Amino acid sequence: MPQPPKLEVCLSPALLHLFNPEGTITVIIDVFRATSTIAAALDNGASRVIPVSAVDECIRIGASIENSITAGERDGKVAEGLQHGNSPLEYPKEFVQGKTLVLTTTNGTRLLHMVKGADGIIIGSFLNLSAVCQFLIEQQKPVLLGCAAWKDRFNLEDTLFAGAVVNRIAEHFTIQCDSARAARTLEAQTGGKYLEYLKDSSHYHRLAGYGLQKDLAYCTTPNLHPVVPILRGNDLVVNS
Amino acid sequence: MPQPPKLEVCLSPALLHLFNPEGTITVIIDVFRATSTIAAALDNGASRVIPVSAVDECIRIGASIENSITAGERDGKVAEGLQHGNSPLEYPKEFVQGKTLVLTTTNGTRLLHMVKGADGIIIGSFLNLSAVCQFLIEQQKPVLLGCAAWKDRFNLEDTLFAGAVVNRIAEHFTIQCDSARAARTLEAQTGGKYLEYLKDSSHYHRLAGYGLQKDLAYCTTPNLHPVVPILRGNDLVVNS
Repeated sequence: MPQPPKLEVCLSPALLHLFNPEGTITVIIDVFRATSTIAAALDNGASRVIPVSAVDECIRIGASIENSITAGERDGKVAEGLQHGNSPLEYPKEFVQGKTLVLTTTNGTRLLHMVKGADGIIIGSFLNLSAVCQFLIEQQKPVLLGCAAWKDRFNLEDTLFAGAVVNRIAEHFTIQCDSARAARTLEAQTGGKYLEYLKDSSHYHRLAGYGLQKDLAYCTTPNLHPVVPILRGNDLVVNS
Repeated sequence: MPQPPKLEVCLSPALLHLFNPEGTITVIIDVFRATSTIAAALDNGASRVIPVSAVDECIRIGASIENSITAGERDGKVAEGLQHGNSPLEYPKEFVQGKTLVLTTTNGTRLLHMVKGADGIIIGSFLNLSAVCQFLIEQQKPVLLGCAAWKDRFNLEDTLFAGAVVNRIAEHFTIQCDSARAARTLEAQTGGKYLEYLKDSSHYHRLAGYGLQKDLAYCTTPNLHPVVPILRGNDLVVNS
């Protein structure tokens, strides 16, 4: 019997060069809050999300697309020249359905654009945890779970999510990666109480300082938005 | 009352640029096996350890120093041209006392040479866990725990040791570092059974493949060599 495909966890974009995304399904993880917002917007009917790095690019692309929303924050506030923020709660069905969300984020978008040669790039967050797991099991391809981190610094929320995925799909994969092992242990010991564990994390403090506690609670609730956002060209769309 | 000094954990040399070692006591951690061997050799009476990166440098320096031992491994074997290996068990008192150990290792030595501007650079391993903790508490300076990792890849053994230190000295420091939090959680859940937890790690498998189980058990036993090796110029000596 052949070995099951390999699964690895990359804890920071600054470590991505140690991995080879070629042929993998790579999962981009930016729990607070880019990948949570993408899952929410697409599940709520956005036709697509276009992730971009810079605010000016966001404005330019938004202006060229009918029925689009430009969104993005810097330092916890809607960036100058954009219309909306980076909260999954800002994109309910009645607002976002049928629209193109042009979203600029720092960590998540950067990692997404760094990954080269993957067979597929999808978006992971607690909001679509089970959908991501199911997709990875079905593909039967090597998996790279890529944590977006915070300005390249290891963070707990993305690592916890990676651990949640690994703990759910480990039996289908070959795992010889210490990062995956660490992520599993961390996630297992939270007993699923993600928010509680994260209340002492650096990013929780940063975002709670902006008054975003509601966002943080939402972003740590599993399976509210059971879709698999997948990259097609420059667009993230619901895999179907 | 002023805040206690900061404590941070750097999980890989590839992340070191995100930290500022200036003014810190930086602890170099390479549990399997460089920093364990250094602690053992110095506790057993070696007059100093000179850590070097390359085999030819090791040979050259060894030839220029009386009463020296050249040591180092590549792929689990004594490197060609050197006399001894990289096992703490190779350096009992009757062999090493009064001698200079010129030691070439890859991960640990590289990290040590990367750290610039620290107030002090010391060597940490389970073998000198309590001595390191005591030293850090006494210094009352910011602390950077630097994991040597494996070719820049995150590893469990160095992270566990970092967690063991943080769990013992946290009350004396300000900790706002997710890596430190993760390391604490990992270490706490092992209940001190380090070897058992590490038996599924990548480095354990690699070294056990070379028949080094005895080394691995030794390197995960706390406080067999209660010294603080500190860098003075190019030499590691016992702090006194």
